[in-house]
Amino acid sequence: MAFMELPLPKAFMLFEPGPVILVTTNDGRKNNLMTISWHMVTDFTPCIALTTGPWNYSFNALMQKKECVLAVPTIDIAEKVVRIGDCSGTSVDKFEAFELTPLPASVVSAPLVAECLACLECQVTGYLEDPGIFLLRGVRAWIDKDRKERRTFHANGDGTFAVDGETINLRHLMADKIPDGV
Amino acid sequence: MAFMELPLPKAFMLFEPGPVILVTTNDGRKNNLMTISWHMVTDFTPCIALTTGPWNYSFNALMQKKECVLAVPTIDIAEKVVRIGDCSGTSVDKFEAFELTPLPASVVSAPLVAECLACLECQVTGYLEDPGIFLLRGVRAWIDKDRKERRTFHANGDGTFAVDGETINLRHLMADKIPDGV
Repeated sequence: MAFMELPLPKAFMLFEPGPVILVTTNDGRKNNLMTISWHMVTDFTPCIALTTGPWNYSFNALMQKKECVLAVPTIDIAEKVVRIGDCSGTSVDKFEAFELTPLPASVVSAPLVAECLACLECQVTGYLEDPGIFLLRGVRAWIDKDRKERRTFHANGDGTFAVDGETINLRHLMADKIPDGV
Repeated sequence: MAFMELPLPKAFMLFEPGPVILVTTNDGRKNNLMTISWHMVTDFTPCIALTTGPWNYSFNALMQKKECVLAVPTIDIAEKVVRIGDCSGTSVDKFEAFELTPLPASVVSAPLVAECLACLECQVTGYLEDPGIFLLRGVRAWIDKDRKERRTFHANGDGTFAVDGETINLRHLMADKIPDGV
């Protein structure tokens, strides 16, 4: 594993396809992880919105520290990612329980996840109480260029997941809509 | 093509995987279509959030009529979907230009799209100006059970798209998190 910096203008590309992601936080006492599918890009800069609320243990850390890391897992660790979403940080040290490696981030106190394809360090810029949407701004991005398995996966909501298949290139049909540097 | 009603508790499953979708509106004069990747589920009921703003022609129809249809296209019409996102309803009748068939919806004035896998009729329940998020509540859902091509596609942001590949089943790891009826 070797994270290299990913230019920020490209970081929205990690999230626009809608993969299952991990959100790491640190509340000043310990690191935590949660699994999220309910997220979207809101700006190329990048800004990301994610839906969660007080029912998640990570909520307090997000509200108090106003920082997190969004980490993009690949299909080889899908089972861990689903199990992470099925237990609570109130009772489990998830990094230890799931044998994941927290790495120090550069700007935020929440950790990167060594076993993920990519990570985005984020600051919380707002919280919309109804329906419970955190607004995040990405401040530094990392990608593992050497990783062989790069296929992400998408939750269908019923416990099944769609794995990335073939890639098609339609860039010629939308060249004027693609931001500079992408 | 034969749309059958999809029970509303299952409709969030159309959007949770994060596919590229079409949004139809009707402003009282004509139907329109836009292409969106920046959306997320915010509740199982279902509620969906999507990011857009006054720079899109559909914005006024969404604000005024407070209705739309979210339609899920499959890979066989990916080129049309990308072209729809690359032109504006100000100058183009998109249903006509792209040879798509508007069908009457049952609750809202915006049309279903006959060529899509599924459609969700939605009411606009709110608009958050910064960063420009529409909050939608799905009120009736439709699915084409007979359609052979069912693979959706996900925007990578650079003009390439990830097509759905294999499906994996991890339901046994998260059975307690899956809502009733899903």
